[in-house]
Amino acid sequence: MSTRRSFLKTASLGGLLAVNIPEIVGAAMPGAAASKGRRVKLSKDDIILFQGDSITDARRKKDDKAANSPAALGTSYPFIAASELLWRAPEKSFSIYNRGVSGNKVYQLAERWDADCLDLKPTVLSVLVGVNDFWHTLVNGYKGTVQTYRDDYRALLDRTKQKFPEVRLIIGEPYAVKGLSAVDDKWYPAFDEYRAAAREIADSFGAAFIPYQEIYDKALKSAPGSYWTPDGVHPSIAGARLMAEAWMQVVNV
Amino acid sequence: MSTRRSFLKTASLGGLLAVNIPEIVGAAMPGAAASKGRRVKLSKDDIILFQGDSITDARRKKDDKAANSPAALGTSYPFIAASELLWRAPEKSFSIYNRGVSGNKVYQLAERWDADCLDLKPTVLSVLVGVNDFWHTLVNGYKGTVQTYRDDYRALLDRTKQKFPEVRLIIGEPYAVKGLSAVDDKWYPAFDEYRAAAREIADSFGAAFIPYQEIYDKALKSAPGSYWTPDGVHPSIAGARLMAEAWMQVVNV
Repeated sequence: MSTRRSFLKTASLGGLLAVNIPEIVGAAMPGAAASKGRRVKLSKDDIILFQGDSITDARRKKDDKAANSPAALGTSYPFIAASELLWRAPEKSFSIYNRGVSGNKVYQLAERWDADCLDLKPTVLSVLVGVNDFWHTLVNGYKGTVQTYRDDYRALLDRTKQKFPEVRLIIGEPYAVKGLSAVDDKWYPAFDEYRAAAREIADSFGAAFIPYQEIYDKALKSAPGSYWTPDGVHPSIAGARLMAEAWMQVVNV
Repeated sequence: MSTRRSFLKTASLGGLLAVNIPEIVGAAMPGAAASKGRRVKLSKDDIILFQGDSITDARRKKDDKAANSPAALGTSYPFIAASELLWRAPEKSFSIYNRGVSGNKVYQLAERWDADCLDLKPTVLSVLVGVNDFWHTLVNGYKGTVQTYRDDYRALLDRTKQKFPEVRLIIGEPYAVKGLSAVDDKWYPAFDEYRAAAREIADSFGAAFIPYQEIYDKALKSAPGSYWTPDGVHPSIAGARLMAEAWMQVVNV
């Protein structure tokens, strides 16, 4: 540890500091404070599972089931966060999976939860879901309400906690950026209720909460929405990094 | 800028520092010093091109020609470095491309150089090539020597400089990790000559040089070779991050 500390000292004096500070994410972190700033402490041999919809899926190779596989982790925030965890803490022997599936709403996570969550025996479960629970009411006749979302989400986490009482939870806030192709005025104020529901659920389950809406809103000060998410829902590569940095802020490695 | 500075101060006091220091890469940076520590200063509107073989290609979507596309950047160090550049410096409006192709040796880069380099008008060109120039002499009867590699590489860069005298160059050292499936005793000492040739070429072209061999060698102190590169040549996700962090250390954003 002394080598590490002396290196840290050298590095911080040597100009590495300025280039590695995630200023945009950091600036958004008052949102994390608002949800009590819960963090998840990662431990040796943790099995970390990313779950969600297309934002998480990000064209992962579905038939590659291996942990820590670049192809299986997609090209969004799970891949970037995994690359940092595995690079920075080889001694922790993390096993990291992505099982996001494009288009999923909460009930669709539930339908595949045995195979795509419980069978993997996660010790850390990160979920980002909700945008489709709302969006699909506008575009494909889905009949669920925010109460459906809330009930389905609670049931999913209850089921998970029942099987793995010690699982540590990370819940991402559904977000949307207005004025881009997928997000028009019809989203508001209804969509905001889904965001609030996710936060309530995080609170009631003691989950770490990532305030993605606030993080995107702050990022708009440095570049237009389309820079971070071309359609208002799916992140660009810059948006994926923004989300990964936010994700890293709620874990202690 | 005052907001940024005050945030930097807060962040460094708030515990972000420790989690963002690339200690393994940093510890390897004496290698960079040995090649005079040249860095590339990035500027607004830079067109940054990653070129090379499978290590760079990393299953990028070949028919996606767009700049800054997650799918087009593959799942290795170019994707991770691009995510950091685009996240950290939106005001720079970088256009970032990956045109690595699996299996390529230098002469094969030359064959597609008009379409896959010159036509893109790069202002920053990052090349990592050489492992196949050696490896294929062992496994598929390729007749090139280290002199072929050197001559082909110089010709490629001369051609590039002739068209774009101001292009800034980044050259990655070919590397291999011994004792894994792709790398046996037959590689040595011959392969070391290719590493030395890449460094000489970087020096003679005034390129920033990334000492990947030293970076991997140092990383072996924290985890076995297979953790960083399962076959001794292709990076794992941890290895990809290791390389991306090293790449970021030779640029000033």
